[in-house]
Amino acid sequence: MSFTTKLAAAWAHNQSLLMVGLDPDTSRLPEPFLHRDPTDILNFCKGIVDATAPYVCGFKPQIAYFAAHAAEPQLEVLCDYIRRSYPHLVLMLDAKRGDIGSTADQYAKEAFERYQADAVTVNPYMGLDSIEPYFAWPDRGVIILCRTSNPGGSDLQFLKLESGQPLYLHVAELVAKKWNHHGQCGLVVGATFPEEIAQVRQVVGDLPLLIPGIGAQGGDIDATVQAGRDANGTGMMINSSRAILYASSGIDWQDAAARAAQATQQAINRARGL
Amino acid sequence: MSFTTKLAAAWAHNQSLLMVGLDPDTSRLPEPFLHRDPTDILNFCKGIVDATAPYVCGFKPQIAYFAAHAAEPQLEVLCDYIRRSYPHLVLMLDAKRGDIGSTADQYAKEAFERYQADAVTVNPYMGLDSIEPYFAWPDRGVIILCRTSNPGGSDLQFLKLESGQPLYLHVAELVAKKWNHHGQCGLVVGATFPEEIAQVRQVVGDLPLLIPGIGAQGGDIDATVQAGRDANGTGMMINSSRAILYASSGIDWQDAAARAAQATQQAINRARGL
Repeated sequence: MSFTTKLAAAWAHNQSLLMVGLDPDTSRLPEPFLHRDPTDILNFCKGIVDATAPYVCGFKPQIAYFAAHAAEPQLEVLCDYIRRSYPHLVLMLDAKRGDIGSTADQYAKEAFERYQADAVTVNPYMGLDSIEPYFAWPDRGVIILCRTSNPGGSDLQFLKLESGQPLYLHVAELVAKKWNHHGQCGLVVGATFPEEIAQVRQVVGDLPLLIPGIGAQGGDIDATVQAGRDANGTGMMINSSRAILYASSGIDWQDAAARAAQATQQAINRARGL
Repeated sequence: MSFTTKLAAAWAHNQSLLMVGLDPDTSRLPEPFLHRDPTDILNFCKGIVDATAPYVCGFKPQIAYFAAHAAEPQLEVLCDYIRRSYPHLVLMLDAKRGDIGSTADQYAKEAFERYQADAVTVNPYMGLDSIEPYFAWPDRGVIILCRTSNPGGSDLQFLKLESGQPLYLHVAELVAKKWNHHGQCGLVVGATFPEEIAQVRQVVGDLPLLIPGIGAQGGDIDATVQAGRDANGTGMMINSSRAILYASSGIDWQDAAARAAQATQQAINRARGL
């Protein structure tokens, strides 16, 4: 099954475009997690996964939060848990890798074999041969940074090219028209810039978009959905991390996360007219 | 001691601008390493480090080659070994990370606390706030991708901006004039494009350059040194990986690596007029 087929099924399964980002910041783990060690990181993430699984299309563990604590073995267990318990949902590894071919091949093995991710985020700065090795796994997705939601996102991405086009839009066009010959690509486009999501959608057709920036980063759900939906009213993995993970720091953390996820799912669906 | 001070001392110690990249490809390990497992990866890298240490200014482990084999514990041991055995040489973690502030903070912890690297390579696509968290470790270096030596390097980096300047040169200027207010930055500029190294050198003053692409990637040593040297005749970490690591696949792998490293060091020094 191709990544886009799995993603479409995941959108349909829970009628949800919401993706939950698993960014376990040890300084913000709720009350019951006293040790703030790799075991706590794993158990917190599993608890979030179980609490929010009915309301999402997938999960996106961010590898940095594991790597900083030597918790790669726990990330392996978590990925395995997600794949076994929720095989109908998408598992995306947020790693934003970018390196030359022979090294990218190692990163692809890390994402697709070691962690068994359905998709991985990558950086386009080093060009096509830094992306191609990922296509050797034909059933996986490769989600390429285009326009990011952070303040410094504009430093490079908003630079105007000779053609008058900003860099991020050139990247969108390059990916949709040249790099996506295997149909495995998607793009990261931040929710803080709905007009720019609309411009990207216009040049990329039905390419799936990973849209971070909802919730803690302040993106507007209605504007995002109007700008980013594809012809089927889907086309987006709208990511929320902190607003769901840390909805409560007390013993009700799981209930609070579930409520926050459900509320976000519903807000997205209202914006889709469902 | 600042990173630039440590680097200058390392250049002087062995009179060498050569950096050895530790990219342990398990399919290419020499004859004695039968298991091709994490222990073999570690022992091969330690053997290369010991054999080449007299001829280099530093070592650059590439994390992907460890991560693909769940060999992060071995990378920790290797980094610790380099720091204890060769404290006068530079330890650079080649990770090419790039993410928003809160996540970049985790990657900085990974590089600077877990692996105790003197410097780390990062990607500029997400802008200044994806770089800033690394500056919280004032004695460490942050080496930013500018112009890479791979074929796809031109896809984005060579795009012409409205100003007529190619993107990579804009990045060089941005880093040298705006992002480097703590004096911790360096740039990655591939050896396959000596004229471009010269252009970068012209806009960045004495900023240290990490120059991959010598050896297996075919970069010309003389042209590189002429283009990249700073006012002191140094300013470069010229990286070679495969041509040294895999100089022999037989039992003489350590001697062959030492000879290859020494020959490269000497070729670089001849080009410097030493």
